[in-house]
Amino acid sequence: MSILVVGSVAFDTLETPSGKRERVLGGAATHFALAASFFTDVRVVGVVGEDFLPEHEAVLTSRGVDTTGIEHVPGKSFHWTGSYVKSLDAAETLATDLNVFADFEPKIPASYRDTDYLFLANIDPVLQARVRAELPNAKLVAGDTMNYWIAAHRDNLLKVLRELDILIINDNEARMLSGETNNIRAAKGVLALGPKSLVVKYAEHGSAAYFSPHSFGDNFERNQFRAPATPQEEVVDPTGAGDSFAGGFYGYIASRGAETGGKLTPEVFRKAMFYGCVLGSLSVEAFGTDRLQRTTRAEIDQRFEHLKEISHL
Amino acid sequence: MSILVVGSVAFDTLETPSGKRERVLGGAATHFALAASFFTDVRVVGVVGEDFLPEHEAVLTSRGVDTTGIEHVPGKSFHWTGSYVKSLDAAETLATDLNVFADFEPKIPASYRDTDYLFLANIDPVLQARVRAELPNAKLVAGDTMNYWIAAHRDNLLKVLRELDILIINDNEARMLSGETNNIRAAKGVLALGPKSLVVKYAEHGSAAYFSPHSFGDNFERNQFRAPATPQEEVVDPTGAGDSFAGGFYGYIASRGAETGGKLTPEVFRKAMFYGCVLGSLSVEAFGTDRLQRTTRAEIDQRFEHLKEISHL
Repeated sequence: MSILVVGSVAFDTLETPSGKRERVLGGAATHFALAASFFTDVRVVGVVGEDFLPEHEAVLTSRGVDTTGIEHVPGKSFHWTGSYVKSLDAAETLATDLNVFADFEPKIPASYRDTDYLFLANIDPVLQARVRAELPNAKLVAGDTMNYWIAAHRDNLLKVLRELDILIINDNEARMLSGETNNIRAAKGVLALGPKSLVVKYAEHGSAAYFSPHSFGDNFERNQFRAPATPQEEVVDPTGAGDSFAGGFYGYIASRGAETGGKLTPEVFRKAMFYGCVLGSLSVEAFGTDRLQRTTRAEIDQRFEHLKEISHL
Repeated sequence: MSILVVGSVAFDTLETPSGKRERVLGGAATHFALAASFFTDVRVVGVVGEDFLPEHEAVLTSRGVDTTGIEHVPGKSFHWTGSYVKSLDAAETLATDLNVFADFEPKIPASYRDTDYLFLANIDPVLQARVRAELPNAKLVAGDTMNYWIAAHRDNLLKVLRELDILIINDNEARMLSGETNNIRAAKGVLALGPKSLVVKYAEHGSAAYFSPHSFGDNFERNQFRAPATPQEEVVDPTGAGDSFAGGFYGYIASRGAETGGKLTPEVFRKAMFYGCVLGSLSVEAFGTDRLQRTTRAEIDQRFEHLKEISHL
């Protein structure tokens, strides 16, 4: 079944210990869509400016991504400038030029209305809620957010969280949302805010899923899952790793949709976590979207098997 | 097959967010021996003072631990005072009274000479090397160390590492030893110093094993293993978690010794990692050795199965 992702399509200017790159294609929706495209049909809702050229759109369309929902408007595209020179674990933002993204009003093309799987990437929770309301028949809704919305737009964000089947965030965001430092208490705190399930990314330590009693039963201790990270000796560019994780994760879930009828099952959820790790690990091996552009489903499945091999008794 | 552990037997005065305790039984050899005692026969070489009473020795002997090698000398036992009030992740040392441990000269009883599995807990590497040399017929030798020896006694430590089948340390120690910050490069760096295999503990993120080409083949990527941590909502006292991990891990390996003839196999090594996690997780749930004293093999196996359940596809 197809996925609709709504989020940023942008350019990134990056500096990492591996080098510098000017204005590479980026944005949460871009990374997500490319990662998910190895599993299912993907539709994108976003906005770009006049600097977004056919060659940029072709990065998505050549992977079969439907870009009908990428609105072209006068002006410049969102441009983020960041550095990982001090630490690969945390981006230092040098400049955030929102440009046309500042007035982003997501418009859902008629051809997207039958979408079963909705992913609300990290944008203003008011827009997330609006898109969600416009697709009342979506079978499954997942979403991301970030520290800015947690700190400054908490009430709006809380309305979105209550509607989510899956919230996918990192450990710092889980701590901020819950006010708890212990990982397990933080997860419980976030689940108490309403999402039916929670995926927390722990960077090089993999990820964990936590399920509310509405998901697979009421035993919290049993209703968890840990997925390891692919051993990563070199990280070239961490930008988009989380979105690539989300794309691999949700793409796999949607690819099993015909079987599951849009319901989550523990088996599908677990494998999806592994696929998320794989896509996240691939994405950091080159700048921007380069690595995702040249991977294959065969390579992805090989890494999936490797991850299983190094984590199963 | 039986294990001999050489290391500290001590008293700890502790403060954690859960409360304060004065002079509870502690020490690396104590935690290790109790954890390993659920799997195999354990022998201890250590030194204590006159404050180490029959009731303290009974904590070990009641679990079947052979304490023949615990030497009683005039004076006071090693006494460590520490606080975890600022952070449960890092102990703040308030006082280290080495007392009789300052002049520790490990003496191996004649009845211990047939030991097959030797564990060199965190003591002066000169003593570790001496004990190792006194048991030339040990089938497997594992060991631990700490930042102090890495920083100030590196040359002596390097001699010990070259003789180890398994080095068990935490992620900070792996970084210090290797000079690398990336976990995978740190592991490669430590293996280059000589140990045949390396287990790195990542606290709440579980642990990983890395094998040199001398172990199970020459593909480093394939020769790794990740074990998750048991979800831990509350940590009462982290003291001895690493030693309990090592005891559970090595105890399980020794318990399979009759089958394996003292050789490491991937299957045994992997399960041992899970048992290490289980014993580490139990140990932090109460002050000192309290939790290990009242667990059972049935409870341990139940946690082992839980860990498998939440980490396997």
